[in-house]
Amino acid sequence: MTQPMKRFPAASIDKLPEDIRTRLLAVQEKSGFVPNVFLTLAYRPDEFRAFFAYHDALMEKESGLSKAEREMIVVATSAANQCQYCVIAHGAILRIRAKNPLIADQIAVNYRKADITPRQKAMLDFAMKISRSAEEISEEDFAAVAQHGFSDDDIWDIAAIAAFFALSNRMANFTGMRPNDEFYMLGRLPK
Amino acid sequence: MTQPMKRFPAASIDKLPEDIRTRLLAVQEKSGFVPNVFLTLAYRPDEFRAFFAYHDALMEKESGLSKAEREMIVVATSAANQCQYCVIAHGAILRIRAKNPLIADQIAVNYRKADITPRQKAMLDFAMKISRSAEEISEEDFAAVAQHGFSDDDIWDIAAIAAFFALSNRMANFTGMRPNDEFYMLGRLPK
Amino acid sequence: MTQPMKRFPAASIDKLPEDIRTRLLAVQEKSGFVPNVFLTLAYRPDEFRAFFAYHDALMEKESGLSKAEREMIVVATSAANQCQYCVIAHGAILRIRAKNPLIADQIAVNYRKADITPRQKAMLDFAMKISRSAEEISEEDFAAVAQHGFSDDDIWDIAAIAAFFALSNRMANFTGMRPNDEFYMLGRLPK
Amino acid sequence: MTQPMKRFPAASIDKLPEDIRTRLLAVQEKSGFVPNVFLTLAYRPDEFRAFFAYHDALMEKESGLSKAEREMIVVATSAANQCQYCVIAHGAILRIRAKNPLIADQIAVNYRKADITPRQKAMLDFAMKISRSAEEISEEDFAAVAQHGFSDDDIWDIAAIAAFFALSNRMANFTGMRPNDEFYMLGRLPK
Amino acid sequence: MTQPMKRFPAASIDKLPEDIRTRLLAVQEKSGFVPNVFLTLAYRPDEFRAFFAYHDALMEKESGLSKAEREMIVVATSAANQCQYCVIAHGAILRIRAKNPLIADQIAVNYRKADITPRQKAMLDFAMKISRSAEEISEEDFAAVAQHGFSDDDIWDIAAIAAFFALSNRMANFTGMRPNDEFYMLGRLPK
Amino acid sequence: MTQPMKRFPAASIDKLPEDIRTRLLAVQEKSGFVPNVFLTLAYRPDEFRAFFAYHDALMEKESGLSKAEREMIVVATSAANQCQYCVIAHGAILRIRAKNPLIADQIAVNYRKADITPRQKAMLDFAMKISRSAEEISEEDFAAVAQHGFSDDDIWDIAAIAAFFALSNRMANFTGMRPNDEFYMLGRLPK
Repeated sequence: MTQPMKRFPAASIDKLPEDIRTRLLAVQEKSGFVPNVFLTLAYRPDEFRAFFAYHDALMEKESGLSKAEREMIVVATSAANQCQYCVIAHGAILRIRAKNPLIADQIAVNYRKADITPRQKAMLDFAMKISRSAEEISEEDFAAVAQHGFSDDDIWDIAAIAAFFALSNRMANFTGMRPNDEFYMLGRLPK
Repeated sequence: MTQPMKRFPAASIDKLPEDIRTRLLAVQEKSGFVPNVFLTLAYRPDEFRAFFAYHDALMEKESGLSKAEREMIVVATSAANQCQYCVIAHGAILRIRAKNPLIADQIAVNYRKADITPRQKAMLDFAMKISRSAEEISEEDFAAVAQHGFSDDDIWDIAAIAAFFALSNRMANFTGMRPNDEFYMLGRLPK
Repeated sequence: MTQPMKRFPAASIDKLPEDIRTRLLAVQEKSGFVPNVFLTLAYRPDEFRAFFAYHDALMEKESGLSKAEREMIVVATSAANQCQYCVIAHGAILRIRAKNPLIADQIAVNYRKADITPRQKAMLDFAMKISRSAEEISEEDFAAVAQHGFSDDDIWDIAAIAAFFALSNRMANFTGMRPNDEFYMLGRLPK
Repeated sequence: MTQPMKRFPAASIDKLPEDIRTRLLAVQEKSGFVPNVFLTLAYRPDEFRAFFAYHDALMEKESGLSKAEREMIVVATSAANQCQYCVIAHGAILRIRAKNPLIADQIAVNYRKADITPRQKAMLDFAMKISRSAEEISEEDFAAVAQHGFSDDDIWDIAAIAAFFALSNRMANFTGMRPNDEFYMLGRLPK
Repeated sequence: MTQPMKRFPAASIDKLPEDIRTRLLAVQEKSGFVPNVFLTLAYRPDEFRAFFAYHDALMEKESGLSKAEREMIVVATSAANQCQYCVIAHGAILRIRAKNPLIADQIAVNYRKADITPRQKAMLDFAMKISRSAEEISEEDFAAVAQHGFSDDDIWDIAAIAAFFALSNRMANFTGMRPNDEFYMLGRLPK
Repeated sequence: MTQPMKRFPAASIDKLPEDIRTRLLAVQEKSGFVPNVFLTLAYRPDEFRAFFAYHDALMEKESGLSKAEREMIVVATSAANQCQYCVIAHGAILRIRAKNPLIADQIAVNYRKADITPRQKAMLDFAMKISRSAEEISEEDFAAVAQHGFSDDDIWDIAAIAAFFALSNRMANFTGMRPNDEFYMLGRLPK
């Protein structure tokens, strides 16, 4: 097994706090492997708990954005931040959620050219502005995305996901977090 | 009272979930006012809880960085991200924690010229690289900060604070979060 | 007393040319201290004279811009240039001229979020373009600011102040010019 | 079949000049499909011939760089230029030439974190400087790559490939060239 | 004679392959000297042939763009890429083709201020976007240039010239290609 | 005669204040024409006087920098700021002062490739940093230029010229100041 991150020692699952160990084992049960983000962040249990609570609050809840659309935001902004772990791991999730084996690579390289709807293009324009130059966000940006039918709450979701992965991308680049080998092929072949 | 943020309705304290209301009242008791970040993020209780759990895990715990040093990271990176709320609110906290009425304004404008130690300058160089170009972080950057005596765990703290405020700055710019008027003067006068 | 600048010896007031010494003493009389820009630039008497002649021609004359508005331009562009002296010293002057203890910090961090009028926002947009990318200034930029009622002469004032502080910010960063301690509190308390 | 590019009509193979048609059929024979770059550039036969003559002069000849290394340069610089066609099509070729199903995605997102040798990292640093800021190339850059054992001729190859794909990436982005669906899976499964 | 490039040995004309030698002698016959781009690229005969075939396919053919307009694209984009050889050599050609001794210097410094028509300004705006940020080219950019009467084929020419000189500029900066002394004065004096 | 600037009416020489008119006539006497910077800035007599006092204090005095070297700084930084007037007018002066018909064009396009000494290259590196990112100027930058034998006063001259033309370039771009036709040929032919 490759090391989950380059700069810090990997957590040993059986020495983790009970709640974290339980979560890791549940993920392993479901996915067949433990994504390295869990092993990496487990180095700091309190940060681990807050990170995944935040993640779940954005990515698992009901929203005007489909789960695939939320993963599009993750892939597009993580590519702009050159985050290897997030692009490759969430690219896999996007392929699965969108049931589309091509979409993640397209969005990762240049979302403007991807096979997405104008509504999704507007969503990603807004997400990219939050990710790259949130200080310039303006009424025009809100109007541009709202005219595609996104509610205020949907727009919060777009912004919050872009903001959360601004954190996540930085931690992954800092720790040298590696995508597990399993992610590269997930969702590429028809079931 | 000015509105805590421009784009979303302010939470009404008495309608908030019990745990959040309790936290707000405790802050109000201690500070004499409720910082707008609490009222803004309370719009989304689950995100609120994760946000402050993450914040406390980084800013309140024991660390090789003093609390003043941690606030320096917040002020320097938030200034680079042009986050009005974070620079002004955490500038106040920095003045108080450092017992220095000048340091926050100096760091906010140009941390390279601030009255800080070479160790703190190296800490902020590393934090700024995480904040602005984490994708380029390299062995040289780790070596440069480590030679000032920061342990690996201290360096994680530097990076994690910069990363957490990358999220925070984006949410504040997105919501148009306003610094409370009280922050501007805090820590400027001798007690 | 802290050193007025880091890289060159401070001028000794009693050895300065008569006209410069007179100006310094007059400023000291009026303000209670000699701002470091005077002591720094006095190192080069001819440049000193030209600098302050230029400054006064822009900042002291009658104009369609109020004195507070002119200081807004100084603070916004100097913040973009990360000029510690100019942001802190002119921030103080702005607070006094605008009779507003909050405005300078708001503009320094992100003028787009400051409590200013749409007219002032347009003025600062134009000033920032002159400061940061004057080579791209276009008819659209002139039209955008003119529609807020600025005359051609007012627009010259906006541009000339942004241009003059492009010079001033670079000299301050070059010399390591320090804001006097007095500036930090000026204009923050009601008279 | 998806359209090979968005902005210009696709060439009809049987109406192409004889030499171009022959090349397309040969490629189709070998690969099982005609990569869209051939169909797109065939719109302009003279440019087509020059483009592929240049391509072959760099990518097919003997060189101190392996064919896989040359594809690494293509993938890294094309990712920086956000060229969907080049990253996805040459990513496939890289996987095949390097017999490594993971390497292309790693390099596309952030070559600094990819599983490559220090020699390859230095090669990509040089290629990226040619691609992104050739005007600043200096003796230090030449020395840095030469010390990994690259000859002057090898360095020419690195630079020329980066320069050629600077052209190619721009034409692909201009024409809206689509990667063929076949590329996404090539080289991902063991033979 | 100054060296044609700094980093590689100059080709000796009499040892070049026959076809390349013939081309060089023809150019010398016509111009009175051999432009250094020929001597530099002759170091690699196959690349030489492809380069000039591409060049001629774009610059010598019939087009909706005049030859002077095509040289404007070369000068403007090469200036943005800080390519000394291309700006000075093609500046000379532009002066001659436009029969205008001033236009090349104007475009090299800031094409937005040059004495050109609105149609030419739109052409250069499009060329610069291809040169500097082709990944963002959009329907709006196509519409903006098309409304000045450029056909789709003309727009291909604009883009292809900008893309070809993206390659050319990088090779010139890489090799340290020097403009021949003769270019500086060409086209500056009335015939 | 072409208009001296695009956006404001040209000053009529006989209506100017006596001192300014005298200066213009003296320049005309010496040069054979009135450079447009005089006619443009005369629109604002007080700013005119300060501008030229500053200019003369830097460009006419004794210095460790030759007059040609000072013009190199003007040309290099004005090119980075895309200031048509300054590059073309001061390019002419540089050719004359350096008695070198090629140097100005070389420096304007890419000073790193110009035929200058290592000392002059270090001088321009420092000047460019003041011009483009003075906020990052550091001890290393001072040391790098000092080791070529520049005194502290020489370094002030380098910085002050770069800073003064930061102002000048912005005013020229703002006013649309045109270089007089005479400048283009000055210093290109042997006397």
